[in-house]
Amino acid sequence: MLFIVGLGLGDEKDVTIKGREAIDSCSKIFLEAYTSILGVGKERLVSDTTDITSEFIIKEAFYGKEIVVADRELVESGCEAILAPAKEERVAFLVVGDPFGATTHMDLYLRAKERGIEVQVVHNASIMNAIGRCGLQLYNFGPAVSIVFFEDNWRPDSFYDKIALNKKNGQHTLCLLDIKVKEVSLANMMKGKMIYEAPRFMSVNRCIEQLLEVEEKRKEGVYGQDTPCIGLARLGHEDQKIVSGTMSELLNVDFGTPLHSFIIPGEMHFIEKDCFDHFRENKQTSS
Amino acid sequence: MLFIVGLGLGDEKDVTIKGREAIDSCSKIFLEAYTSILGVGKERLVSDTTDITSEFIIKEAFYGKEIVVADRELVESGCEAILAPAKEERVAFLVVGDPFGATTHMDLYLRAKERGIEVQVVHNASIMNAIGRCGLQLYNFGPAVSIVFFEDNWRPDSFYDKIALNKKNGQHTLCLLDIKVKEVSLANMMKGKMIYEAPRFMSVNRCIEQLLEVEEKRKEGVYGQDTPCIGLARLGHEDQKIVSGTMSELLNVDFGTPLHSFIIPGEMHFIEKDCFDHFRENKQTSS
Repeated sequence: MLFIVGLGLGDEKDVTIKGREAIDSCSKIFLEAYTSILGVGKERLVSDTTDITSEFIIKEAFYGKEIVVADRELVESGCEAILAPAKEERVAFLVVGDPFGATTHMDLYLRAKERGIEVQVVHNASIMNAIGRCGLQLYNFGPAVSIVFFEDNWRPDSFYDKIALNKKNGQHTLCLLDIKVKEVSLANMMKGKMIYEAPRFMSVNRCIEQLLEVEEKRKEGVYGQDTPCIGLARLGHEDQKIVSGTMSELLNVDFGTPLHSFIIPGEMHFIEKDCFDHFRENKQTSS
Repeated sequence: MLFIVGLGLGDEKDVTIKGREAIDSCSKIFLEAYTSILGVGKERLVSDTTDITSEFIIKEAFYGKEIVVADRELVESGCEAILAPAKEERVAFLVVGDPFGATTHMDLYLRAKERGIEVQVVHNASIMNAIGRCGLQLYNFGPAVSIVFFEDNWRPDSFYDKIALNKKNGQHTLCLLDIKVKEVSLANMMKGKMIYEAPRFMSVNRCIEQLLEVEEKRKEGVYGQDTPCIGLARLGHEDQKIVSGTMSELLNVDFGTPLHSFIIPGEMHFIEKDCFDHFRENKQTSS
């Protein structure tokens, strides 16, 4: 029996009662830890050198059971460690947000079903629906785009065309910002050293810088310094921050610790405009 | 103090621990009851004559407190009944799904803020993110469309252009199906009789009939009998049902009790195709 349980966006109390009961009933618990991070006290995340695994101590204390952190290697290399015990025992696979939110875990689901393992899914909030919190209507969003960290020789800008298409159609665009966890630098990889870099989470400011760089290069006028936009940080957490303004205004707003998200609105209806103004006027107490 | 709490999609155990604690701390509880319905035993919903309010008895038993059902009139007429006590007491406003899911409650939020009332939002799963359960990637969806019950003289088909645009862009379309709760017929309204009709929930079958009727009229070849599609019923409930197939195949599938949703996929990537096939082959045990 395999439970795939969404943990929601905030802290350990954002699991549902159903999810909590499922976890309590399991003998093995895995936590997916490469598509998102758990919401924890910011002091645990501000430093670049934070060990990403330290945060799980809280969870273990909360659930009273050992939790195995399932990194990308474990999940993408066939999930044997998860599926083998699930044949006989009750196993929980925990996912921050919703199980099928930003990144799919359908592969794990299909593999389990193929082996005749019963699967139960416990849904929860994810960034994909919680962004409604900023007042933009979910059904006015076009497809979301991913903004990855630009490197010296790798500055992919396919998001530009997608934002352009959404804008043309009057649709809002959610930008999902890059998360780099357990990455190995090219230099270390070439030396055969599997040394993980410090985790990195893209800020709203960095996102805007990259967006403007691409506009500067492509010059198709999809957006610019004066384009209205919304920055969101730690959505669903007690200290969440939502600020609207122009790109150049938000470039200098300190959104604090991760995770951040970014929205470029399309056409806004009146209640959406009211909300946009609300988050602009209340910059200091914007949640 | 106003808590706006998402209840999630399934039953009373789909509230989060944070949400449950908020509810427990409140002296007044309102339940929004016109944009969705609570998941309850199907025997309570199969009949056309079911009293929509009867289901709330379970909730009251679960929460151990009286719950006031907030219908459209109450919410849209200024929310005085909710906001006045929230100035002094802890008040909870419960919403099925996520608070800012399919329909906005941002208006209530803004009114509360205007009056200086502190507001806390507790997020949860909603149809807008839980549809990832069918294996289609959320970031490949274009804007969702609403399909309303066709009446004799009112057969709005603006969804057709929206589906066409999504298809053209290779994007999936989620169709949100009509819910009619506490509606008064035109005949009764003209007689000045505020008699509520029995609640109605659009089925996948009815949705497909209406879609095909509009294609028949518009003849732009946006979709047809052979178009792949996915029907979903009671998503997030224990007896949920997901079936993929062509429109004509799904026209005759019995999806059972509400709520239903419907998806017209755009371009499908390989894992999305695998999932589509999975739900086609496993028609009888499709959850």
